[in-house]
Formats: sequence, structure tokens, C-alpha cells
Amino acid sequence: MESRDELPVPPPALFPAREIRLRLDDLLTRELADMNERVARGPVMPDADMKLFRARLAEFDFAAPRPVEPLLEWAMAQLEHGVVHMNNPRYFGLFNPAANFPSQCADRIAGAFNPQLASSGSSPVPVAIEGHVIRAIAVRAGLPAESSGHFTTNGSEANYTSLVCALTRLEPRFGEHGVRAFSGPVAMYTSRECQPAWFKIVHQAGVGRAALRLIGTDSRGQMDSQALAEAIARDQAQGIVPVLISATAGTTGGGMVDPLAACASIARRHGIWYHVDAAWGGAALCSDRLRPLLSGIELADSVTIDAHKWFATTMGCGMFITRQPSVLSEAFRVAADFMPSSASNLDPYLTSVQWSRRFMGLRLFLSLAAAGWQGYGAHVERAVEVIARIRQRLSKHGWLTINDSQLAVLCMVPPDGFPPIREIVRQVLASGRAWVAATTFAGREVLRICATHGETTLADIDELVAALQAAR
Amino acid sequence: MESRDELPVPPPALFPAREIRLRLDDLLTRELADMNERVARGPVMPDADMKLFRARLAEFDFAAPRPVEPLLEWAMAQLEHGVVHMNNPRYFGLFNPAANFPSQCADRIAGAFNPQLASSGSSPVPVAIEGHVIRAIAVRAGLPAESSGHFTTNGSEANYTSLVCALTRLEPRFGEHGVRAFSGPVAMYTSRECQPAWFKIVHQAGVGRAALRLIGTDSRGQMDSQALAEAIARDQAQGIVPVLISATAGTTGGGMVDPLAACASIARRHGIWYHVDAAWGGAALCSDRLRPLLSGIELADSVTIDAHKWFATTMGCGMFITRQPSVLSEAFRVAADFMPSSASNLDPYLTSVQWSRRFMGLRLFLSLAAAGWQGYGAHVERAVEVIARIRQRLSKHGWLTINDSQLAVLCMVPPDGFPPIREIVRQVLASGRAWVAATTFAGREVLRICATHGETTLADIDELVAALQAAR
Repeated sequence: MESRDELPVPPPALFPAREIRLRLDDLLTRELADMNERVARGPVMPDADMKLFRARLAEFDFAAPRPVEPLLEWAMAQLEHGVVHMNNPRYFGLFNPAANFPSQCADRIAGAFNPQLASSGSSPVPVAIEGHVIRAIAVRAGLPAESSGHFTTNGSEANYTSLVCALTRLEPRFGEHGVRAFSGPVAMYTSRECQPAWFKIVHQAGVGRAALRLIGTDSRGQMDSQALAEAIARDQAQGIVPVLISATAGTTGGGMVDPLAACASIARRHGIWYHVDAAWGGAALCSDRLRPLLSGIELADSVTIDAHKWFATTMGCGMFITRQPSVLSEAFRVAADFMPSSASNLDPYLTSVQWSRRFMGLRLFLSLAAAGWQGYGAHVERAVEVIARIRQRLSKHGWLTINDSQLAVLCMVPPDGFPPIREIVRQVLASGRAWVAATTFAGREVLRICATHGETTLADIDELVAALQAAR
Repeated sequence: MESRDELPVPPPALFPAREIRLRLDDLLTRELADMNERVARGPVMPDADMKLFRARLAEFDFAAPRPVEPLLEWAMAQLEHGVVHMNNPRYFGLFNPAANFPSQCADRIAGAFNPQLASSGSSPVPVAIEGHVIRAIAVRAGLPAESSGHFTTNGSEANYTSLVCALTRLEPRFGEHGVRAFSGPVAMYTSRECQPAWFKIVHQAGVGRAALRLIGTDSRGQMDSQALAEAIARDQAQGIVPVLISATAGTTGGGMVDPLAACASIARRHGIWYHVDAAWGGAALCSDRLRPLLSGIELADSVTIDAHKWFATTMGCGMFITRQPSVLSEAFRVAADFMPSSASNLDPYLTSVQWSRRFMGLRLFLSLAAAGWQGYGAHVERAVEVIARIRQRLSKHGWLTINDSQLAVLCMVPPDGFPPIREIVRQVLASGRAWVAATTFAGREVLRICATHGETTLADIDELVAALQAAR
């Protein structure tokens, strides 16, 4: 029997009518703008009573529907009191930006269309846009025009992808038989100042944590290329197979750039895959003035750059770029007869660890199209200038600069009379006036300050300095 | 010398004034709502001239800034003509949903605050919200209350995580020495109807593609548990180490559920990690009526569920859930002294492959809070009803049902007089009237129809049937 009965009404909570959507979107537009202004003036640190919050959260048993509008209000209020605020211009933090506006627009557009970025058959225009941006960044870095790559969730994923590429290219039987196909244990090399996701990456790639060689750094926090060459020779003498060198262009701790060209030479001499982790520092390529600091990046087999760091897009917008796209096709090949375009070997699902994916690349495309290289150049140069002003002010108060970065990270130690660094940081965070970090740089406990907010003012700098001096 | 000169003005393209942001957000609100209505009435398939589009795209050399408003207009217009439309209610497609409204709101809120989800120190409220949703889903699946997990970019990442957990738990030296620590080659087991990302996963995890055992299915497309047990015994006899069984709850091709309890018994008997890939089917847990179809999922060591599939959130919102959270802490441990809360071993960056991450979980939290289990139950039951209606209509026209899914995927073959399935699909797609797929199910070429859009009507079903019949 064929039923002509009407289908059940779709749940209005999930699919409300147009008028309701317009009203709630308008509400978000205004309340988020107001929030942004309050957050910029308010404390950087969260002040939520987490015990109380957890009790409220526990009441969400999802037993019955709740009206959407109060839910949105509740969520915004909880976030306003429940996160470290990257939107506060006195967040001098961990490479997390206040998101630029074009990238927020891109997110809205991507969410509304909700395209599936796995394949060009499903998303021809989005896949083309992403490819265009990736190539533009590659060419800006000096890589050959036939370079390619893809957007990743983050820098960890891009760095992991470089290791998979290295293993795949160096041992033809790796794809079929895995790490056991190598003649001995493998090893990869990065500096002790590297982003520590590498500890997880060697574990999850099946080569093991023992494969990670943390090469020492010189007094400036840059990978010691002599020590790198020696470590490789030592491993080779013992039957260990070197597969990957990852140099860092913009270390987390000190904003330092490893000797990119020297590392490239060593990699080439030994036939090792050469990766440059420019997750944060890569944006310096936009500035004609700062770009030479990354000289040598054009020699890389692959590069990590996160748009959600210094390009200031919303979170979750990394990039993996490679001069050897055929290795991606070899590493991530698969046959799926239900996919719209499995014929092409350039589809994102055939060239990356991802399958279902959001249209992330629109964020960088719209931001870059709106600002141009010059706008982004001004953005990164301004951050470097913010750091220079902070250094000037603190130096006047007797603080000593420990790192020698020409990017936007500053490591300093206070003069006599101050408590230990971690106590200074504790006091500054407790005041809510600014966010700074304690870290270890070149074997020494330092105060770490990074310019991440695009609209930090002189008044914000004064406030930071006052907050630090108050810890004396 | 201390400089008191004003800092350069931040690039207005990236950080426009409040009035401009309000105006552009209002523009997006209205134009995206209009777009949504046009897309629902229009063709499902893209109609962009890609050669022309690529030529336009090539003009974006980013040499100079461009005004944001025309850029947004351009991007929306290109997307409207340049993607397969999940927002069209006649997309009977690959588990890609029309995004529900609360999840789109969640994306806006997350983008505006742009919290860093790596750590609870940085994002105490977001990390607590994500943990609450994960536990609620775990408990709904019948897993113990101490289960935990995290949001992932997609199901591939969650499935990959299950393999890393399996390897880490089974061989204590795996973390340090990788796959070579096992006494022999390892193997994992899933059915030949599995999501094919597993081919990439075994490659990138360093165990190699040869480790993947695709177990045959019975006539209903469900993993043959007898064949599974035999494959394991055969491998063990040869010194191969079985590490993981992944059963699928809602196969891509036929919407079938593997025998979850039988697979669990086999895994337990051999001490193998037991994973259930319920990327799509997991949403059936919301319905009291459909939930029993997933019986046995409560025996899993880990589960994949994608909110961006049947939960209809925006793209990029997967989940990995495990009854053994300590294995996650062992697999993804790292020490990073600059992180705000490396003391806690429950932070997302210490328990997942991710580091920097977007606040993805807010999408499912707000959707689930708004709809409740009952709203989501109605949503999935409605999809099953849509498929029942399509089956009725096509059966009347002599089409034969090939699969026996009680979820929302239908595999059918036409009566005599029709061209081959792929030709039918080609004609339907060319008409733009609906989107369906050709695939192989149980060794046979079939037409695959899946209800993915929450607001498909009887008229849409009639249109689909007419488009298919027109191919005769």
C-alpha cells in the first residue's frame, strides 16, 4: 500500500522558519558585537565559577526540548565568562588570534551552504578556491608553481602529514607493509624548541617516540645544524634510518627561525624529507620586509602554515603545502566507488588524512583577497612593532631581553627585586589585566610575550607594563 | 629611546569598524536566507562553468586589497552555482546534511569568541561543555558513565584514533618503539562494506595496507562473524597479531548494521580492541524506536559518531568515545611547559591527535539542547519514513529493494527496460531534479538513495520518483 499521508513535521528546534532564523541571526549579530567590545575592555582571564557552572551544565539532560533563544543567550554569557579572551587586546599569548572579520564571514557562508570538501565532484568551486590559495601561498614562499597541498585542521595534522609523506617516499614498501618495511628503526629530527605535538606524531605514526631526535639549539634558540648533521651520522652508523628533518620557522617559545638553508643542505645530502614548520611564522611571508627572515623555506619538501595563527582566521584552518604532490596521492590513495569523482587523484579525500571536511579555505581566501599581501604585511609588521614597543618600555625598567627574534615573540627576565617568573605570571593573570606566559627558553625560565591581537594599542601596552611592574 | 609615536592603524579590511561589521552581517543574514530558499527550489547539481570560474579565480593575485562587500557577494554567488546542494531537499546523498540552525548559530558564537580548545586552562567552559555532550552520547549508547572522548574533525580521524588506541593498549612498548615492538605484523578487521578511509588509516598509522582484512558480508551486507573469527584464527596461526575489529553501524553503501554483539564476543575472546564505526548510524540512538537496532554498541571499547552526518550539524564535527579514557592519555601524552594546564591529563591536546582546535562541540550541544532526544528522535524517524515512502513508490513502479536496512538508506534496482544504473544516475543528475548515487551493494550494482535533508516533502519524493522513471 502506498501512503499519501503527510510526513511528520520536521522538528522546528532544528529547522525553524525563516522569520525566526532572521530574528535570531540579528540577535547574534548585535550581541556578539557588544560582547566583543565588553571583552576588549574587560579582564582577559575567565571568571566563571566552574563548580557552579558544572552544576548548571549537569541540568542539561536533553530530556525535553528547550527554546533556542535563551539557549543562545546562555551560551554567549557562559563563554564571555568562561574562556581566556583572544579578543582582548591584552592577550599576549600563544599564537591564538582575535579572528579577523572576513574569516568570520567565510565561516557563516561555509556553514550555510555546508559543502562537502572531500571531493571536487561534490564541491568544484570550493576545491578550486582552496587550491588557488594553497598555490598562492606556495609561490609566495618561493616554492615551485606545481606545488600543491590542502587545508588541515591544524599544524599538528600538517606536521603529521609531512612524516607520512617522508615514510612513503623513502620506502616504497611502507604503504603496504608499514614501518616494518624499513631496514631498521627510523628517526626524525627537529630541535628541542619544536612544537611538542611531535611527541604525539611519532607515536601515532607507528614509528615510536624513540624515533624523535630533539637536536640541541645554539645560544639564540636555533637548531644547531652541526649537531643535526652529527646526530644523523650517528644514527646511520647504527643502522637507524633517518627519514625527516623538521625545521621550525617561528618557535613557540622564542619566535626563532632555525637555519633553514643549512638544514635543507643536510636533508638533501642524506636524501631525507625536509619539512619546515612555519605554523605561526609563515605569515611573515606577506611582508616584503620580513619575508627574508624565512629564506630557505623555498627549499622545503613540505611546509606547515596555520591561517588561524598569524593570519588571524578563525580556529581550525591549517595548511600543508608540498613541492611533491605525487607523494600525497601515493600516501592517501583509496578506491571508493560511491564517491562522485574518484577518478581524479587530486581530490582532497585522496590527498590528505581527511575525508569529510568543512570549507576551511574560504576563510583565508576572503581574508587575503580583502587585505591583499600588503594588508597582511601591515598586520604582521604591526605585531613586530608592538613587540618592539613592549621591549623598549620593559628595558627602561631594567628588564633584559633573552631571545633575539625579529618576529613578534619576546622573552625577557626582570631585574632584581622581582619574584620568580611563574609568580609574576600568576599575579598578572590574577589581575586580569593581561595574559602572558612563563616558559623555558635556551635553558632559562623567561617571561614570554607574543603580539597576537591585531588591534593592540599603546594604552594596552602601558597596561601590560604596569601589570608586570606591579608584581615587583 | 622609547617611542611614543602612535602605532600604525590596523588593516581595516581585516578589522573593520563596528558599523561595517553590523551592516555586512545583516547582509549575510538576509542573502543566505534567500539563497537557502532558492537552492531548495533549484537544481541540486552545480551549474558553474568551471573553465570560466578558474579564469576569474586566476585574477585573484592578492596584489591589492579589494572591498569586502563585493567579495562576499561574489563568494556566495559562486557557491550557489558551484556545489552539490546539501540544502536541496532532493539531495538523497552521501550522509551530508543540510545544516540545522542551532549548529550554524554555534559556529557563529565559536568564531566570534574563537576560543582555543586545546586546553581547559584556556577554555574551561567550552571543554566542560564538550565533555558533557560526549558523556551524554556515551551513556545514551549504553557505555559506562566513566566513558570519555573528544570531538574530532570527522569520522576518519575518530576511526584512526581507535587504531592508535588499539596498538597502544595491546603492546606496552608500542608508544616508545612503534609497530616494530609487536612480535609480528599486525592486522585489523572490518567488513568489505566499511567506510574506505580505513585504507588510508592503516597506511598512515604505520601498520601498512596489508594489515587491513576486509571480511566478507552475508547476503544482507552485514559482516560475516564466522568469517571474522576464521580470519583471526588464520592470522594468529601465522604469527600475525590481531589488534582491532571495527564493526560498522550504518554502512555507507547499504545502511546496514554489522552484528555488533557477535563481533564484541570475538574481540573479547581474543583480547582485541573493539571499535564501532557509527559515524552515520549513531544518531539512531536518539530514537527510542530505532535505538535497539544498535544493540551491542554498548560493548564497544570505542565508538565513532559524526554529528555532521545524521545529527545534521555543520561540517567538521565528529566524535571519538571510549570506555577506556586512560588509553587516550597514554597515546597522546606530551609535556609542554608553555601550555596553561599541562598538569591535567584530561585536556583535549593530551587526549587526542588534535592540538589547536575550534570549539566544535557547541554545535551538538546547542542542537541537542534545543531539540532534546525527542526532537532528534523525530528527525531520524522522519528520515526512515521518507525512505519508506520512496520504497513504496518505486516498488509500485516495479523497482526491487536489494538491501534490508531499517535505517534511512535504500538500495534498489529498476525493472526491465531501464538503462544500466550508472546511466540512470547520470540522467537524474543531469536533470538537476535530484541527487542519487550508484554503488555496489552485496556484489551488485544498485541505485542508492539516502534521506539526509531534514525537510524533504512528499512533493520532493514525487519529483525524485519522476526523475528516476524518466530515465526508462
